Amino acid sequence: MSKIKAGILGATGAVGQRFIQLLENHPWFEITALAASDRSSGGKYTDACNWRLATPLPERVRALEVQPCRPPLDCDFVFSGLPSSVAGELEEEFAQAGYPVISNSMNHRMDEDVPLLVPEINHDHIGLIDIQRKRRGYTTGYIVTNPNCSAIALALGLAPLHNQFGLEAVVVTTMQALSGAGYPGVPSLDIIDNVIPFIKDEEPKLEEEPLKIFGKLTDDKIVFADFLVSAQCHRVNVQDGHLEAVRIRLKKKADEAELIAALENYSSLPQEMRLPSAPARPVIVRREKDRPQPRYDRDAENGMATVVGRISRDTIFDYKLVLLGHNTIRGAAGAAILNAELLVARGLLGKLNSNS
Amino acid sequence: MSKIKAGILGATGAVGQRFIQLLENHPWFEITALAASDRSSGGKYTDACNWRLATPLPERVRALEVQPCRPPLDCDFVFSGLPSSVAGELEEEFAQAGYPVISNSMNHRMDEDVPLLVPEINHDHIGLIDIQRKRRGYTTGYIVTNPNCSAIALALGLAPLHNQFGLEAVVVTTMQALSGAGYPGVPSLDIIDNVIPFIKDEEPKLEEEPLKIFGKLTDDKIVFADFLVSAQCHRVNVQDGHLEAVRIRLKKKADEAELIAALENYSSLPQEMRLPSAPARPVIVRREKDRPQPRYDRDAENGMATVVGRISRDTIFDYKLVLLGHNTIRGAAGAAILNAELLVARGLLGKLNSNS
Amino acid sequence: MSKIKAGILGATGAVGQRFIQLLENHPWFEITALAASDRSSGGKYTDACNWRLATPLPERVRALEVQPCRPPLDCDFVFSGLPSSVAGELEEEFAQAGYPVISNSMNHRMDEDVPLLVPEINHDHIGLIDIQRKRRGYTTGYIVTNPNCSAIALALGLAPLHNQFGLEAVVVTTMQALSGAGYPGVPSLDIIDNVIPFIKDEEPKLEEEPLKIFGKLTDDKIVFADFLVSAQCHRVNVQDGHLEAVRIRLKKKADEAELIAALENYSSLPQEMRLPSAPARPVIVRREKDRPQPRYDRDAENGMATVVGRISRDTIFDYKLVLLGHNTIRGAAGAAILNAELLVARGLLGKLNSNS
Amino acid sequence: MSKIKAGILGATGAVGQRFIQLLENHPWFEITALAASDRSSGGKYTDACNWRLATPLPERVRALEVQPCRPPLDCDFVFSGLPSSVAGELEEEFAQAGYPVISNSMNHRMDEDVPLLVPEINHDHIGLIDIQRKRRGYTTGYIVTNPNCSAIALALGLAPLHNQFGLEAVVVTTMQALSGAGYPGVPSLDIIDNVIPFIKDEEPKLEEEPLKIFGKLTDDKIVFADFLVSAQCHRVNVQDGHLEAVRIRLKKKADEAELIAALENYSSLPQEMRLPSAPARPVIVRREKDRPQPRYDRDAENGMATVVGRISRDTIFDYKLVLLGHNTIRGAAGAAILNAELLVARGLLGKLNSNS
Repeated sequence: MSKIKAGILGATGAVGQRFIQLLENHPWFEITALAASDRSSGGKYTDACNWRLATPLPERVRALEVQPCRPPLDCDFVFSGLPSSVAGELEEEFAQAGYPVISNSMNHRMDEDVPLLVPEINHDHIGLIDIQRKRRGYTTGYIVTNPNCSAIALALGLAPLHNQFGLEAVVVTTMQALSGAGYPGVPSLDIIDNVIPFIKDEEPKLEEEPLKIFGKLTDDKIVFADFLVSAQCHRVNVQDGHLEAVRIRLKKKADEAELIAALENYSSLPQEMRLPSAPARPVIVRREKDRPQPRYDRDAENGMATVVGRISRDTIFDYKLVLLGHNTIRGAAGAAILNAELLVARGLLGKLNSNS
Repeated sequence: MSKIKAGILGATGAVGQRFIQLLENHPWFEITALAASDRSSGGKYTDACNWRLATPLPERVRALEVQPCRPPLDCDFVFSGLPSSVAGELEEEFAQAGYPVISNSMNHRMDEDVPLLVPEINHDHIGLIDIQRKRRGYTTGYIVTNPNCSAIALALGLAPLHNQFGLEAVVVTTMQALSGAGYPGVPSLDIIDNVIPFIKDEEPKLEEEPLKIFGKLTDDKIVFADFLVSAQCHRVNVQDGHLEAVRIRLKKKADEAELIAALENYSSLPQEMRLPSAPARPVIVRREKDRPQPRYDRDAENGMATVVGRISRDTIFDYKLVLLGHNTIRGAAGAAILNAELLVARGLLGKLNSNS
Repeated sequence: MSKIKAGILGATGAVGQRFIQLLENHPWFEITALAASDRSSGGKYTDACNWRLATPLPERVRALEVQPCRPPLDCDFVFSGLPSSVAGELEEEFAQAGYPVISNSMNHRMDEDVPLLVPEINHDHIGLIDIQRKRRGYTTGYIVTNPNCSAIALALGLAPLHNQFGLEAVVVTTMQALSGAGYPGVPSLDIIDNVIPFIKDEEPKLEEEPLKIFGKLTDDKIVFADFLVSAQCHRVNVQDGHLEAVRIRLKKKADEAELIAALENYSSLPQEMRLPSAPARPVIVRREKDRPQPRYDRDAENGMATVVGRISRDTIFDYKLVLLGHNTIRGAAGAAILNAELLVARGLLGKLNSNS
Repeated sequence: MSKIKAGILGATGAVGQRFIQLLENHPWFEITALAASDRSSGGKYTDACNWRLATPLPERVRALEVQPCRPPLDCDFVFSGLPSSVAGELEEEFAQAGYPVISNSMNHRMDEDVPLLVPEINHDHIGLIDIQRKRRGYTTGYIVTNPNCSAIALALGLAPLHNQFGLEAVVVTTMQALSGAGYPGVPSLDIIDNVIPFIKDEEPKLEEEPLKIFGKLTDDKIVFADFLVSAQCHRVNVQDGHLEAVRIRLKKKADEAELIAALENYSSLPQEMRLPSAPARPVIVRREKDRPQPRYDRDAENGMATVVGRISRDTIFDYKLVLLGHNTIRGAAGAAILNAELLVARGLLGKLNSNS
């Protein structure tokens, strides 16, 4: 009956709100602690938070007190949706104090001893946790991260192709949603009747993170994948859902039918283990000539899948295609929750009663 | 004092309206004939047309009668903004009847004996007119076309680089404005909170037209340029201005300063000849980290320039950059008008009094 | 086990699609017949229809054949989402042929012998069915309508106040969603960065329909309510959800607390009878200073409620407030479904097995 | 030749930028001083300002140093676009120091001895300046304000009707543009696919300011007009241009033709005096069934007019109509500039050489 107790760091922010929304009625986790910056802490969550999601603020969370972002908190582990300006140190502090930290922040993603986890792709990277603990002197605590919102949609959509045919080069041009910038984020006057061809720090992340995600765990570190990624990133006037135009060159040649089969048949450990938040189909292929589209496809598999469409031969690369992921679900809070579920299933997080 | 008399085919459509707007107060041309589908013809222009531009319908044009799209029309030549479903035959009919046809339609763009004209780039392609006349038995008439709206912005922005360093490969991903689809065009329910990763026939045009634009006129035909173009095209929620994310590989290596110098110093025949619609600077370089943007940059040089920004080294290609062109001005009606001006200056269209 | 068999007229249109979406898994009704214009009929629904809703096209409906809009159809009754250009005659034809017609179209709304039904407000108006049958010679068939999308949200939101305090005058200014215009509906170029202060035929409907909705059924007709309505209607760049700014003058004076209590305590027959689509709370009061808002409030009670906010004293009238309804659910297909449910419960439509 | 030297307080803000844009090439004024908050001051304007307008930052202003908002400044008078949090005291400080302050801020608008000036309507209210100087001990300085952006469009559009027929009651429902909230202003996530039925402090302003604007100057104060205004205000997804749905009751009855004639023939002192920024037609009537619209009509008369349309009989009031004004031009910076021009023409501001 008893669930694992989760704390949320950065609980009042955009990602924090998504954590709260997605954890309502979660079968394994219950929220027992909310923490935010000192400015927001000290009162009830309902007063501290400018709730921006369309579903109502869950009843159980309304009256929880918002605490400062410092250990101890009454919980078995923490999700972190902290802004990068403070996430680096605070997450270390919690790990040091014994809390597993399941982070959506960018700060530790590229640390050599921190997994950049996508359970379908690199679940074995959790082997880094031991190395991390030894190196940093953590006891029960550790830090696990999920990739940037654009990188995760890209990696998940290309994983079946990399597995079977080997990626050699990836050219990705993104059209990213407003919610990726948090709240208040992009001023409306900047985006009405407009596109902004710049998102701070985004292109480097998208060029580097996939190489770690698809890296191989050796004795004590990840050996990065050796393909190349070129990224150009744009902000468009869309609420949720990052669209990515992609060209790929493959190591092994494949015809279009083989490509589609690889994508459609893709299934991995989270699906086998039936982790609660795992999408039944992590990659969905749409055959219509004009899909995926953010408004119609972002909620596929509750926002946990990458939707791929417009697969065709390219004049310069092998193939071109368009893919889409929900940036604040699979691209942020949902990704972290799935990571936590994997860690529970692997015995690295909390303890579930047999009957739960 | 007397101007050259211009007719407009497809006068009530989106491109036709732009012709009328841009020709108000033109120093060389005056509109003397308006033609449209039989359905729209027979009354005054002000009654036949659902005027969709923000500037008022020019007074002189209001009372002109809309005539059927058949020769003869009272004019020295015609601009064609006809839809592709009818442009093919009608334009030939006018050329056969002795009218120079300056067309924005796609139908004859890739005809072997029809110039796909961008005066800055390939003004010598007007040499095809003689060949065309001979082959088709035209006397005083002929057909000249301008490229697709995305292709022209791309070609103009890359022309200085191709001239100096030689294009080897171009990867272009477009984010195109709503006005590119004409009127009524894209339903609002399709584009609100959305991006559509498909524009009918657009990717092939963008992959082929640049090769003809940059082709070399030999004895009797254009030998196409030999670089490769890969295109992915998207519709975004923007009124005017096509944004294009571009990667290029060059034949001759160049550092970033050389690239920028080539772009900023670019000037060609229309600038030298001071054609009335020629932009003083056909290519503008913005150095801000987040430009060009459609709403802020589409009207540069009265919508006749390509604005380039975000130039940087690419991981796979040599460089990446973002460029922008006004799709209904330099990408359509404005392009055709500049073509007509070139033809006047070359003695191939009308005759200007010395004092005009 | 067996459900009542429903046909849908105008099945491929925007309202028809909503019928199909909302009837998936309906406890009482199953769709057995789909009909559309001759142009769309003759093939499978999945081929005939350009499905525009974010949820997937229900599996059971995909393969149903689209038939012409003529009786007979294999169903116990029909929902009509026909365009007004054809709804008038076709609905009469179906009623004449013995089918109850539950219509969302405007054609028969103001007919003297046709109920303009809002089950919470005027369920007794179904008494008109007998009169209608006699007058028109219908046997088992009849026509029942629901109000215009703006009128229903307004009527439902004001019903508790009219009941307790008596409406004397209503000034309503609407900001209506794009989906109200159907598909393709409003061109995107008309609404980007814009508001259109005109919706064809909308203001008269909004000024007249409430008077019939709140009318009293006497022996053989509805005596209209005697308050006045002034309407100004605007189209705004919103997907779903009509927002209405309202001032009211009441016959009986009431303080703000009484007003709010009347709204919040409102419950009527559909709630008592627990009709499947009845909202638990037909009127919801939001106390935040900036609600209701279309994106956040349109889905309250699955789109079947009117959400009211910003209640305050007015300088000229008694009170001002803002209300919101989902125009394609409670304002169209959902309204018709609730009407059908009332008719079932009253024994006027189909027959449910005791165990369903 | 020499122009009057203008300073701008709040020069880096949204209103400050409009002042700079509109004063480029002004025949009477030249900008000689720019002042902003201490945080923004101390460097060149081009570095201190995030220029958000589509026209380029004027060359002359780029290199001007931004100074703190304290007298003295090198100028003959100041325009104030200061935020209301600081405008109150700073404007008094400048007036005390001898500078005429032409303010767009709300702080002193309702002060008994400060004109709330709309030159077409109440130019005689500048008689308050003497009273103000005496009461406050100002010597050469004084404060003059222009109304709120919604109030000025409303007042200007109704002025001809009030003059001829007398306003008795005005019901106004606004749909206001994003630029009215300044920059960064409304977060894009708040307004995409949405309307916000709340603008802080806006409804009271719109209910009160018109009464002062149409007030009569007696010996020593303004006697407010005696009609009533009811206002409901909404934020919509539009860049510029406030649309207002209006019902009016008149003291003297008028038929529709008389109404339209009054509006179309309206001309007042600024037109007679040919003040440089005065619109030739302060009120424009559109007869189309669907105008005015923000995107098409906001720039009429360079943004200095109110555009009126959809005039028709109302069921409760005498007439209903829709009007539109450009909120950051006639509703802010442009209004202040016209005020300054009136003051110059009346000998209350600067001194123009005969030849300028």
